[in-house]
Amino acid sequence: MSVPMSPQTLEAALRRIGAERYHHLHPFHRALHDGQLDRGQIQAWALNRFYYQSRIPAKDAYLLARLPHPALRRLWRRRIEDHDGDVQPAGAEQDGGIARWLKLTDGLGLQRPYVVSTAGILPGTRHAVDAYVNFVRDVPLLEAIASSLTEMFSPDIISERVSGMLQHYGFVMPETLDYFLPRLTQAPKDVEFALGYVRANALTVEQQEAVQEALRFKCGVLWAQLDALDYAYVSPGNIPPGAFRP
Amino acid sequence: MSVPMSPQTLEAALRRIGAERYHHLHPFHRALHDGQLDRGQIQAWALNRFYYQSRIPAKDAYLLARLPHPALRRLWRRRIEDHDGDVQPAGAEQDGGIARWLKLTDGLGLQRPYVVSTAGILPGTRHAVDAYVNFVRDVPLLEAIASSLTEMFSPDIISERVSGMLQHYGFVMPETLDYFLPRLTQAPKDVEFALGYVRANALTVEQQEAVQEALRFKCGVLWAQLDALDYAYVSPGNIPPGAFRP
Repeated sequence: MSVPMSPQTLEAALRRIGAERYHHLHPFHRALHDGQLDRGQIQAWALNRFYYQSRIPAKDAYLLARLPHPALRRLWRRRIEDHDGDVQPAGAEQDGGIARWLKLTDGLGLQRPYVVSTAGILPGTRHAVDAYVNFVRDVPLLEAIASSLTEMFSPDIISERVSGMLQHYGFVMPETLDYFLPRLTQAPKDVEFALGYVRANALTVEQQEAVQEALRFKCGVLWAQLDALDYAYVSPGNIPPGAFRP
Repeated sequence: MSVPMSPQTLEAALRRIGAERYHHLHPFHRALHDGQLDRGQIQAWALNRFYYQSRIPAKDAYLLARLPHPALRRLWRRRIEDHDGDVQPAGAEQDGGIARWLKLTDGLGLQRPYVVSTAGILPGTRHAVDAYVNFVRDVPLLEAIASSLTEMFSPDIISERVSGMLQHYGFVMPETLDYFLPRLTQAPKDVEFALGYVRANALTVEQQEAVQEALRFKCGVLWAQLDALDYAYVSPGNIPPGAFRP
């Protein structure tokens, strides 16, 4: 193709990537939501996914470092605030997404120091998450922003996850899933800016291919984490040395 | 020396570095505060220093990216908020330090788009500022934090600067100096955390030498910016091609 797409057509192309590559299609997620996993397998998912959560503010801070204007940085800074929480004027702390993820691992019976240490995560989790952080740090800003656009697809999967987990797993309490509900409103706000930026700035054929490739890369980051979990914890005998054993 | 210092002795050593190397001793700063510069020279100072101000949130975001806990990141995030400002609940924007620095360049009669473009700054300014941002991004976290400790020495110089500039330059209005007054309370808060961190974590002889070296490096970053200004704008005939001409 040698003629740039319109912003509308580019957005449709990006949404098609999600429809084809987002991890809602992964067998591990289908198993998680459909009630086919046991408590140990869900522990492994929550434990490994904690590492992803814990690195999101670093990823966003690297991106923040590269945004050229206060107004853009303010918008992106909200992502870090959502994840890290805040200190209220009276001195009380308001939990962010990371603290709420730890409520999930608490609720699943994992020891918090072990979770936070990330000592038990799979190497594949670490490699995938680190690749994402490094990608955002190192590629052109437009592609870094485009890589966040998997959030276009997250509200659906989150709704499905919450209802599926509450329905199928007696050991999952509603308050254990506190992480997910704020994401239903946070993610669309984040997408609004990032998608607008990509639509406005991916103007050449090369840029439009690059932002699609960035989104494909990010879908791969999410997908690879589930590959690692599925391999280690669904097929028997595959847990690597040093990793969490339910 | 082969025995680590106590935290108190280390702090005294850091303060001694400031007493010997902080840019309050630089002849350009002495000239600025003592009323020996003309309007064009002060324009050049404000124009070049804008680049430093504009890169501070990037520097702090790189550091933020490397802090491992939400509580630490919240404390460091305040620096970015101080510089970039915030959006109030009603939608109004609250100026940060960068916006207040632009009031200074406005008040000195510089065109804002020209200032923001940084097209007219000295290469030496750009090199020094970029070196600082890269240092914070790349060195061990302890040294990155230690490099911020020049703020231990800034309240004195700011008080002196504000009173000196108002006294000596009829073209400087009090509101033009809005940047500086918040720094008198912001800097000590920032120092409190950074100094506490360095005292608590620079425990070996090697670490203690490294944090001192980091502070020396940062004093050099500030010093070199004034060298460049002094050379270009106080000695005649030295303004490099492309740089601002008063």
